[in-house]
Amino acid sequence: MTQLSTINFLEAQRVAQQVLARAGAPAGCAADQCEMLLEAELRGRASHGLQRLPRVVERIHNGVIAPAERGEHHWRGEALLHVDGQRGMGPAVACGALDAISERAKRTGVAAAAIHNNNHIGMLALYAERVAAQGQVLIAVTTSEALMHPWGGRRAMIGTNPVAIGVPATPHPFVLDMATSLVSMGQIHDHANRGVPLQPGWALNADGEPTLDAGAARDGAIAPFGGAKGYALGLAFEVLVASLTASALGRDVRGTLDSDQVCNKGDFFVVLEPASNRAAAEVAAYLEALRAEAPRDPRHPVMVPGDRAQAERARRLEQGIDLPAPLWSRLCALAA
Amino acid sequence: MTQLSTINFLEAQRVAQQVLARAGAPAGCAADQCEMLLEAELRGRASHGLQRLPRVVERIHNGVIAPAERGEHHWRGEALLHVDGQRGMGPAVACGALDAISERAKRTGVAAAAIHNNNHIGMLALYAERVAAQGQVLIAVTTSEALMHPWGGRRAMIGTNPVAIGVPATPHPFVLDMATSLVSMGQIHDHANRGVPLQPGWALNADGEPTLDAGAARDGAIAPFGGAKGYALGLAFEVLVASLTASALGRDVRGTLDSDQVCNKGDFFVVLEPASNRAAAEVAAYLEALRAEAPRDPRHPVMVPGDRAQAERARRLEQGIDLPAPLWSRLCALAA
Repeated sequence: MTQLSTINFLEAQRVAQQVLARAGAPAGCAADQCEMLLEAELRGRASHGLQRLPRVVERIHNGVIAPAERGEHHWRGEALLHVDGQRGMGPAVACGALDAISERAKRTGVAAAAIHNNNHIGMLALYAERVAAQGQVLIAVTTSEALMHPWGGRRAMIGTNPVAIGVPATPHPFVLDMATSLVSMGQIHDHANRGVPLQPGWALNADGEPTLDAGAARDGAIAPFGGAKGYALGLAFEVLVASLTASALGRDVRGTLDSDQVCNKGDFFVVLEPASNRAAAEVAAYLEALRAEAPRDPRHPVMVPGDRAQAERARRLEQGIDLPAPLWSRLCALAA
Repeated sequence: MTQLSTINFLEAQRVAQQVLARAGAPAGCAADQCEMLLEAELRGRASHGLQRLPRVVERIHNGVIAPAERGEHHWRGEALLHVDGQRGMGPAVACGALDAISERAKRTGVAAAAIHNNNHIGMLALYAERVAAQGQVLIAVTTSEALMHPWGGRRAMIGTNPVAIGVPATPHPFVLDMATSLVSMGQIHDHANRGVPLQPGWALNADGEPTLDAGAARDGAIAPFGGAKGYALGLAFEVLVASLTASALGRDVRGTLDSDQVCNKGDFFVVLEPASNRAAAEVAAYLEALRAEAPRDPRHPVMVPGDRAQAERARRLEQGIDLPAPLWSRLCALAA
């Protein structure tokens, strides 16, 4: 069992920014990258947290992240922004694109960004939350390396292709953020590290046979969530994003899990204006009604997506972030 | 067991159009409505097929469908079309909106339609297929009456909220069309009619307890697909559509299952231009690779969404449509 260090949020933020400064990233781009990693930690999503920072540094050293780039914008039409990310840090490029289409959508009603040649943009929930908090709707989809098997297949052929949807609601926006895989490769690695077996149905080994051995699953494939329907949805996102962003498909996707390959996945955002300023209150009232529903099991109230993440965030802001001690030591060394 | 009549496609089409003409629908709007019902039959989706036609007629007689309306268009911005469906027949209003945003997206890159005050628009796959066959990407989401329970809840609080995604591919476009519920209320009714028990996990009874009794499930709630994730996705579509179209939420939604209430759900379409004209061939090659994957079970090859529907369509165009004999008699009577 790895020892954990509890780190104050501001201290973690200071060290993370220092790590990127040492690696040659300008302050603005570094701030966007750090915010994504730190907010993921705050929400209890370590898979998208600071464990990714050493890889970002390695990718900068290897020339596959260009840390000062924010992407080149080209409007393919009045409302569709094509972004060549120019190998910039994922969140810096994504935030630049999102700012541009959010502003444009105020006039056009809807605007979209299709981003390629960009690095991993982090937890999508944060983009959805930001856009919805400003009064607009966001749909976001990205692709990843092939980690998921098609329903009825044996090999990883599809990304874990997450989707996020943000909708204005008062006082807190509605935020969905989920992968289309049943579990994340991060969870598989976590089980392997802890020597804990997987649950049935989670994964196949390299021969395409079901396995409970997390180590074997790392070389195999994880299942789509929800069987044939989840497969169909993840596949739809794979071809949607490739079609709109001119990014790679299936087993040709590279660069979000390694340290030395140019990233060729795609990111896709749509921002829309709600129909009226009454919508945010109506959505909020409906979500409150859901939370108040009688649960099947009195110990497990009906949840609304995002509620747990907000509770985790409040707790960690006060009590600090638990990081594996070796990770924290490594970050401090990279910052020195 | 209900007897089936096998009807030639052109004969079914003639009778369906005659039914709507008798009910007072102009030929153009009637053609859009009939095409949706007949194409659903051809693809083996009887739940969205001709069984809905008598209800359309009743709704026209009751004044909750205005059969000559195609909706009032108002651009809320350069690329966002607001449509008041004016109680028109669903497919007529939807086709009019889709034509307008498809044309607009050629210039703006992306355009969206937010439709309210419209009737049931039918099987979403057809819209996705049409747009993708013309070289554009479509995302479509609609809401419905509350039929689905929240994950961990007891009552129907959420629509079955289907999503469709169409992406150009050569020679056949990629088409996803799926509800976010595990099964449809049509399947529950079908099991009840045939006296066949449900599968575990499909539905709750009116007291919020699991049931295998299809009759009891009709008054209860059906499960989301894929557990908590499917619930989260269906809920996201519920609030997304309500926010964009100013339509009703949850248990306030009416008018797609009854014959006398004004329909207050919402329909939402986004049309986008692909990044390049190479994308359609690349998507097609990837889908071919999926079909060629080694399956887990040699009897069940890896499928791509839409393949089965296309095979069904070809077979029925040649061999005819199987309809319950009482339904066909009723349609013939309505046409007389």
